[in-house]
Amino acid sequence: MIYFDNAATSFPKAPFVAENVFNYLKTSCSNVGRASYSNAIEISRTVFQARENIRKLLNADKSDRVIFTNNATHALNMAIHGLVKENDHVVTTHFEHNSVLRPLEYLRRTRNIKVSYTAYDEDYFPELTDFENLLKQKPQVAVFTACSNVTGNIMPFKEMVDRCREYGVISILDASQLMGSYPLDLQDVKADVVCSSGHKGLLGPTGTGVMVLNSETIPEAFLTGGTGSNSESIKHPEIMPDMFEAGTPNTTGIVGLNTSLEFILDIGINVIRKHKIALIKHFIECLDNLENTIIHSCLNVQKQAGVFSLTPANMSITELIGILDEKEIASRMGLHCAPLAHKALGTFDQGGTIRVSLGFFNTFEEIDELFAVLKHYDC
Amino acid sequence: MIYFDNAATSFPKAPFVAENVFNYLKTSCSNVGRASYSNAIEISRTVFQARENIRKLLNADKSDRVIFTNNATHALNMAIHGLVKENDHVVTTHFEHNSVLRPLEYLRRTRNIKVSYTAYDEDYFPELTDFENLLKQKPQVAVFTACSNVTGNIMPFKEMVDRCREYGVISILDASQLMGSYPLDLQDVKADVVCSSGHKGLLGPTGTGVMVLNSETIPEAFLTGGTGSNSESIKHPEIMPDMFEAGTPNTTGIVGLNTSLEFILDIGINVIRKHKIALIKHFIECLDNLENTIIHSCLNVQKQAGVFSLTPANMSITELIGILDEKEIASRMGLHCAPLAHKALGTFDQGGTIRVSLGFFNTFEEIDELFAVLKHYDC
Repeated sequence: MIYFDNAATSFPKAPFVAENVFNYLKTSCSNVGRASYSNAIEISRTVFQARENIRKLLNADKSDRVIFTNNATHALNMAIHGLVKENDHVVTTHFEHNSVLRPLEYLRRTRNIKVSYTAYDEDYFPELTDFENLLKQKPQVAVFTACSNVTGNIMPFKEMVDRCREYGVISILDASQLMGSYPLDLQDVKADVVCSSGHKGLLGPTGTGVMVLNSETIPEAFLTGGTGSNSESIKHPEIMPDMFEAGTPNTTGIVGLNTSLEFILDIGINVIRKHKIALIKHFIECLDNLENTIIHSCLNVQKQAGVFSLTPANMSITELIGILDEKEIASRMGLHCAPLAHKALGTFDQGGTIRVSLGFFNTFEEIDELFAVLKHYDC
Repeated sequence: MIYFDNAATSFPKAPFVAENVFNYLKTSCSNVGRASYSNAIEISRTVFQARENIRKLLNADKSDRVIFTNNATHALNMAIHGLVKENDHVVTTHFEHNSVLRPLEYLRRTRNIKVSYTAYDEDYFPELTDFENLLKQKPQVAVFTACSNVTGNIMPFKEMVDRCREYGVISILDASQLMGSYPLDLQDVKADVVCSSGHKGLLGPTGTGVMVLNSETIPEAFLTGGTGSNSESIKHPEIMPDMFEAGTPNTTGIVGLNTSLEFILDIGINVIRKHKIALIKHFIECLDNLENTIIHSCLNVQKQAGVFSLTPANMSITELIGILDEKEIASRMGLHCAPLAHKALGTFDQGGTIRVSLGFFNTFEEIDELFAVLKHYDC
């Protein structure tokens, strides 16, 4: 199989992820932070290392502000529900995943919040002027993606975060499509909260995600319960990271995530981005040779994360996905949980696009094979 | 190491859990329910099987009412937040884990709910008469554990559920300490919602839990986001199980959980309980020989799940846990995230107890080794 569905989850995972998860389950699976026997201490140490590795990767201040979650949706729900209050005004964009759109829509219906969507330009990037105009209306919170999961467009998120700080608006950044494959320095990008899955660019197992608190703006707790700390009180603790990690953590997943983080830190995020850029360049060159395909993604390499949305002009997307499945080329047809993005692109009524998303382990040859198929079917 | 911390998480896991998780991560890790290529279909099938296996184990009606969560805390938060409304009255017990107590306390402070705690008898079981009297006050919801994680006492949960139905009160059952090691028939125990972790008696990996909806009483959605279904709408879907499974599921964990469920179904839950009873009987016989130990757990085998809380009379619990750690016998000192249970037992001020919790894979010899140490130190 040729795997081009890395925007959904990366495959393969980093080397030794499977092996280390296996060893943990086989030899030392125990709970974390709640006991004193040696295995329990060992896994507590691994979880701490994983936090520290996220901190290093993002150049964040404190590892105890790195919260492990089940996935990015869990992280974004915690951030949004924990920061948006009744009657608040929230600014967002059309290019958000349903993990942002649906919590906001839920709060709009149940807590009377107002949601404003930033206008976008002809290349499907949010317009900074409009964003700034919305911020002038004094919203409480802005939530926006660093990179579209439909087009792969890398948004002007640094500028958006800066504007939020300028206008005193809390910013929540969804970095699910960039974390682990693009340099993200939280000393420079001063979003209040940064969320991501752990199984996409971070190359860890499904069942992992992170919420990183990057300022003194702390959400209210969302999920409450046992944390192994302050167990004497039925009031949920407010110490970090326990406040946001109620219940037995997914230590199995975190062991895998820690392994992939070590891999990413060893190679270096700039090397990873450089390699990805080479793949993206090659992909764009190949796209040039297609005659009957509409491309919805930005083709400026510097603004592209390696997620390409395509519409064949001579057949339906269902036909094309059937061909790709048969050739064992894994990609993704549909709306990609981002309906407003597809409305913006004008692809909503056709049921979306074919999305081809590149990962660190893809090769030039795999890209060539894909395009050989596309050419063969006159795309 | 001798492992007696099964009430926290079971170890070892069921055979082939580690192997199948390894194979999934190594060869076919892909997202679920959102694509059409063969690996994506394969994992969707495994997740469906896991749901069906939970349904079988519990004799539940519908597998689409089996919701996978990150842990029991996640399941209980979804059930409690989704069913308890502002100003509601909720009945619970002193023997709940913080995963129940803390969400209730949170709602008491923020949504003005009233929480009533059922009186308990001298053996630390909730008093059914008092429970019934509380139900007569017409509370909206009752949340209670099937088995204490501190004493191992198997509560009269069937009777409590029946009383709830009689009085028209919604019931949420925390079965974390029983599911997978005790027969639980949801045609007989008609709780509206049943929650459990997947990594204790169910012998699956950490990072797994379940919420089973066992009636037409459906909680409101708590976490919202992408589900791969109804992607055209920013309104969260109300179809099952998607409504409660926003974001990429922990497929890695579910592969492991499905493996352990097959193991449990193969052996049969009655055989597992029978074996556990044999271990519990042996443990209780050994307890008889201790002269300087206070035992807080019920010693009626039929009412005991294999979780024993002990206080040494001749040394502190800290000293004893030090000895056990040194001998590589894993147990757990403290309040076990259940402060009110320890207040009831009178062990709160001493910082809790030593908890020894048996699992399906423990042996008579391991129990003998533990008691040899306890005898040696004159416990």
